[in-house]
Amino acid sequence: MRTLILTIILMASTTIHSQNNDSISKLIIGMENSALERWNNGDPSGYLEIYAKDIVYFDPMMEHRLDGLDKLTELYEGFRGKIHITKCDMINPKVQAVDNMAVLTFNLILNIGDTVEKWNTTEVYRLENDNKWKIIQAHWSLTKPDIK
Amino acid sequence: MRTLILTIILMASTTIHSQNNDSISKLIIGMENSALERWNNGDPSGYLEIYAKDIVYFDPMMEHRLDGLDKLTELYEGFRGKIHITKCDMINPKVQAVDNMAVLTFNLILNIGDTVEKWNTTEVYRLENDNKWKIIQAHWSLTKPDIK
Repeated sequence: MRTLILTIILMASTTIHSQNNDSISKLIIGMENSALERWNNGDPSGYLEIYAKDIVYFDPMMEHRLDGLDKLTELYEGFRGKIHITKCDMINPKVQAVDNMAVLTFNLILNIGDTVEKWNTTEVYRLENDNKWKIIQAHWSLTKPDIK
Repeated sequence: MRTLILTIILMASTTIHSQNNDSISKLIIGMENSALERWNNGDPSGYLEIYAKDIVYFDPMMEHRLDGLDKLTELYEGFRGKIHITKCDMINPKVQAVDNMAVLTFNLILNIGDTVEKWNTTEVYRLENDNKWKIIQAHWSLTKPDIK
C-alpha cells in the first residue's frame, strides 16, 4: 500500500511538473514568435519590451558580448524600419525550464528576397518579480558560416 | 518598528541572495575552467562528465542544433587527443543565476600555435536532483567570422 501511495504521489508530481513545463514552453515560444514577427517587419520594440535590464547579448557582428538593455536599445534602434523578412521558419524550438528560468533554442531560416540566412539561437528567459518572463540572454549566430 | 523589521528582513534576504549568487558564480566559472583546461589538452571528458543527458548544443560546424548527450559524446570522441591549445583567455565571464539554473557567458581568445580564434560562448547550467550542476545548453559561435 505504501508503495502504491508513493507511486501515485510520484505520478501526480511528474504530471504536474510536465504540465508546468508544457505551459512554460507554450508561453515562451509564443512570446518569441510575437517579438520575431515584429522584428521581421522592422519593429525592434517587440524584443526591447521583453528584454530584462541585465540582458547580455551576442551576435556575429559584435567584437564582444554586449551587456545591458541601454546598449542593446541603442543597437536595435539603428535597425528600426530597415528589416524586411520575406519568410521566417523557426525550426524545432525546444524549451528547457525550471520554475523561474527557461532556455529556448531553435534554428531559424530567413528569406530576405532571394537571400537565405540560417541562424542558431539561444534565448534565456527569467520569471521576474512582477510575474512576467523576460529575456536575460540572447545568443544569435550563423549556422555553418562560409568563412574566408 | 514594523518598517524597521521589514527593512532588516529585506536587507538580510538581499545579502543572502547576493551571497548565493556569488557562490554559484564562483562554482560555475570554476567548473567551466576545469572542463575547458582538459578540452584544451585533448581531453573532452571534462565537458562530457558535466553535460546533462538532455543537453542541447550549437557550434559553427553543425547544420542543426544537436540534441542529447549520446550524440554529443559521439561528436566529442572524434576530437579526443587532437586539440592542443597554446593559450586560452576567458574574457569577462558573467553568471546570471536563480537557485537551480545559471547562465554563464564569456568571450574566449584561443591561441593555437600562430593562429588566433575568437569565440562567443553561452553555457546554461541546471542544479540536478543529486545537487550537482550540469550543463543543459552549450552555444559556441565565432566572434565576427570573416564571411566569404
